[in-house]
Amino acid sequence: MSNIIITDTTLRDGSHSVRHQFSVEDTRRIVEALDEAQIDIIEVGHGDGLAGSTCNYGFSAAPEIEAVRAAAQAAKRAKIAVLLLPGIGTVPDLVQAREAGAAVVRVATHVTEADISHEHISEAKKMGFFVVGFLMMAHRGSAARVLEEAKKMESYGADVVYSTDSAGALLPDGVRERIGILRERLSVPIGFHSHNNLGLAIGNSLAAIHAGATYIDGSLGGLGAGAGNTATEMLVAVLERAGQKKKADLFKSIDACVQVLHPVLERHGVRLPAIQDPMMLGFAGVYSSFMLHAKRAAKRFGVDYRSIIIEAGRREAVGGQEDWLYEIARELAAQ
Amino acid sequence: MSNIIITDTTLRDGSHSVRHQFSVEDTRRIVEALDEAQIDIIEVGHGDGLAGSTCNYGFSAAPEIEAVRAAAQAAKRAKIAVLLLPGIGTVPDLVQAREAGAAVVRVATHVTEADISHEHISEAKKMGFFVVGFLMMAHRGSAARVLEEAKKMESYGADVVYSTDSAGALLPDGVRERIGILRERLSVPIGFHSHNNLGLAIGNSLAAIHAGATYIDGSLGGLGAGAGNTATEMLVAVLERAGQKKKADLFKSIDACVQVLHPVLERHGVRLPAIQDPMMLGFAGVYSSFMLHAKRAAKRFGVDYRSIIIEAGRREAVGGQEDWLYEIARELAAQ
Repeated sequence: MSNIIITDTTLRDGSHSVRHQFSVEDTRRIVEALDEAQIDIIEVGHGDGLAGSTCNYGFSAAPEIEAVRAAAQAAKRAKIAVLLLPGIGTVPDLVQAREAGAAVVRVATHVTEADISHEHISEAKKMGFFVVGFLMMAHRGSAARVLEEAKKMESYGADVVYSTDSAGALLPDGVRERIGILRERLSVPIGFHSHNNLGLAIGNSLAAIHAGATYIDGSLGGLGAGAGNTATEMLVAVLERAGQKKKADLFKSIDACVQVLHPVLERHGVRLPAIQDPMMLGFAGVYSSFMLHAKRAAKRFGVDYRSIIIEAGRREAVGGQEDWLYEIARELAAQ
Repeated sequence: MSNIIITDTTLRDGSHSVRHQFSVEDTRRIVEALDEAQIDIIEVGHGDGLAGSTCNYGFSAAPEIEAVRAAAQAAKRAKIAVLLLPGIGTVPDLVQAREAGAAVVRVATHVTEADISHEHISEAKKMGFFVVGFLMMAHRGSAARVLEEAKKMESYGADVVYSTDSAGALLPDGVRERIGILRERLSVPIGFHSHNNLGLAIGNSLAAIHAGATYIDGSLGGLGAGAGNTATEMLVAVLERAGQKKKADLFKSIDACVQVLHPVLERHGVRLPAIQDPMMLGFAGVYSSFMLHAKRAAKRFGVDYRSIIIEAGRREAVGGQEDWLYEIARELAAQ
């Protein structure tokens, strides 16, 4: 499996879910946690991108440039990205974002309208941005049409082109078809962004990777429009299970969601489903009856319950062997 | 795409989530709703199968045979299934279930232990059951091992054999490999049962179908252990999108979950995530900003908001065209 570059969009696509009310301090803390988890690119700002904070799209709590600056300062390894929708954001907005420390810009258009990204992509390139062309609502274009538009973005200077399933409408076959033709006919790397509306965020991301995509989007806990995006921590788990040489940190990406994002969301009255514990069961391949005992054993022996679950899976424990979890916990504590 | 037979296990695998406290009346109402939605097979009873109601596994609220009888009486089209785990359930339990109206039995063993299903499968066949062999924790066996065990079940008389991803641990490649070899080397149809722990319930179900499975399990709202099963209504939506000649009723399967199951679950203090509205957005391929307006327009014109959403997708409406929804609603009302 190729090395997959994860872009986390909790603070941008996910900002719709809190009506763009992330504070600068929220941004700083979430970026720190994602950076700690070794996520490659972190997108921040208003859900509708640079200059999206308007009466029309809803005002941001924080001035966007301050959020970008805080993010850039908080990230030790990760690159900070901003989104630009031509017609909302302008070239001067790009200049400001670049000065504030953004290294990546994603220039997004409807799948049939790549033309309108010409100026923004070329100007962003001149400013030294790493530029991602972002073709939204990709299900509305045939594979041939997606290719035609993607080629335009490539010709304007885009370093990566995304096929973006904005409505969560594609099935894996549709993803494979679109990503496959882009992979074959473009020189730049290909990306995929999904929504979980049909329960296919992870399934489609894997289909995209198999078809040659190397840039995949996620957001912590899947925070985002509709049924949300691909959950970043689940993407990390699945990539590890699929045999990608370990890169992002699974436990830290879970912690970023549960310990950092969840309390922030609670302040905004938003509660995400608790997907992380069942995810660990799937990751380890054990029955759900193990969770309670793993947590008890973890408390008793002062070890991480996730490590107990993983070790139980490695030993192929089955239902009825819950006692083994305490033995495993004791062994892990002794190490 | 082949004709897919859906088995709904809300009342059996899902019964774990309510500690097996579905009443006979709950069973009757949920079976009626699933039957109305034209789901093919409906599994009922204790989560651990016939005779599972014990101190060890938790007592059922309803005597299992009464639940089976109520289910069989409530179903006009669907077949009623029961689960049997050799070692818990016995041949006399099968006799009772058959007399009460069960037409299908799923005989389940760990993936490496098909041997212990011999007696139950052959006796069930003699009683006139349609018999499903159910190999659990399929990720713990290689494709070759799954085949070896599945062949045993086939030789005992099973009419279908399932590769069951009990821990939600398989990735689509692992599903394709296991289902593919079974499809190639067995004469009976192949089934797949998933859990959503790694977010792959739907993705893996589609992978299984592409590899040749024709029996797929679901439960309303995905109710079930860990992150739950494949949501039945989402399976119905995705099969329709994938081009299966329409069979199960999408709106009625959603109604079965939202209008019938949800109130029952609330009584048990269980709340499922509301996946149905985002699912409709994905099904129709429209932005999430359409939902609010579709609901308003539906109320104003007395039509189903889901029909408005679907029609907006058909007309390729994009963000900013929310006004169109009212026009569509008016037209639908006039028809």
